[in-house]
Amino acid sequence: MLKLPPSLSRLINELSKLPGIGPKSAQRLAFYLLKKDNVEIMTLSESVKDIRKDINFCDECHNMAEQNPCSVCADSSRNHQLICVVEEPLDALALDRTGSFKGVFHVLGGVLSPIDGVGAEQLQIASLIDRVAKLNVQEIIVATNPTLEGETTAMHIAKLLKDSPVKITRIARGLPMGGDLEYADEVTLSRALEGRREF
Amino acid sequence: MLKLPPSLSRLINELSKLPGIGPKSAQRLAFYLLKKDNVEIMTLSESVKDIRKDINFCDECHNMAEQNPCSVCADSSRNHQLICVVEEPLDALALDRTGSFKGVFHVLGGVLSPIDGVGAEQLQIASLIDRVAKLNVQEIIVATNPTLEGETTAMHIAKLLKDSPVKITRIARGLPMGGDLEYADEVTLSRALEGRREF
Repeated sequence: MLKLPPSLSRLINELSKLPGIGPKSAQRLAFYLLKKDNVEIMTLSESVKDIRKDINFCDECHNMAEQNPCSVCADSSRNHQLICVVEEPLDALALDRTGSFKGVFHVLGGVLSPIDGVGAEQLQIASLIDRVAKLNVQEIIVATNPTLEGETTAMHIAKLLKDSPVKITRIARGLPMGGDLEYADEVTLSRALEGRREF
Repeated sequence: MLKLPPSLSRLINELSKLPGIGPKSAQRLAFYLLKKDNVEIMTLSESVKDIRKDINFCDECHNMAEQNPCSVCADSSRNHQLICVVEEPLDALALDRTGSFKGVFHVLGGVLSPIDGVGAEQLQIASLIDRVAKLNVQEIIVATNPTLEGETTAMHIAKLLKDSPVKITRIARGLPMGGDLEYADEVTLSRALEGRREF
């Protein structure tokens, strides 16, 4: 019976634990790496090892950053009265890349998900309420994902802040650019109709 | 402008060099790893680093193996007069897993591909001819992939061995199990017709 060398089996096993990588893709990746020279292999190995090396978290917005406070919170040209609440650092990054948001962020670090044991105390929700109370925040844009958990989290935040004078908005749900009405699901279409705007 | 910490950007950059992993998947993988504990991260890093640690090549069949000669070539219960020629170690592994092949393998290490600068001298073709001449080989099953390069390589090998008494066969091309006639391409269908067999 033919068997792969243990070092290779081990790498295939480790790679197949990653999300979206099944045993076949893991095999393919391992054999791809095997053909690379040692420098490239070491660079990948080192960069996995050093993943946390220079990662800090901003005490203000809880985003992942090089410094504390982060470049956005430290930037006085941004509107600190406008806070965009997101689930994860990548969401903040995606919104920031659009160039159309000039406020600051607040990273929750996840969403309410009782099934995974994630309650409000595991998220940066209390610090958001503090931030709103302490600073003169005008508007909070809740930009959690349009999923069941994202919507629940958005509603929870809205409920907690309903007695404060801050304006709470939710990012628009509707058809994505390039999308197709014919293939859109009912909820998306209902939201697109609800959210319609005059030309 | 929001920026990812350099260690994270570097990992994303390294991961996105892997085949089938684009910048978005690389981001997702990096953030997934970031949430894992240090032990898991170190295990992955080490297994990438050690990929070549215990890999040898069998001098007989040129397959990747733990020992030299490999477990298949060292197994006297296998038919050493029947050689199955494959492109890569994974192909040999896949064929061996079927349990229906009791001969030995010969791993070419690739296919003829002039566009990538791969000629016959970069492959284990000369050693195959030697092996056939030296040992009393009865049959060679050419099991290169049914791609343009695989077919060319198969034909090249058949041509080199046409004056030797060895029987040269090619694995069957046809419809895969679970396949659908309606969606099969013309070449596959033609091959399936050509290769028809009596019940």
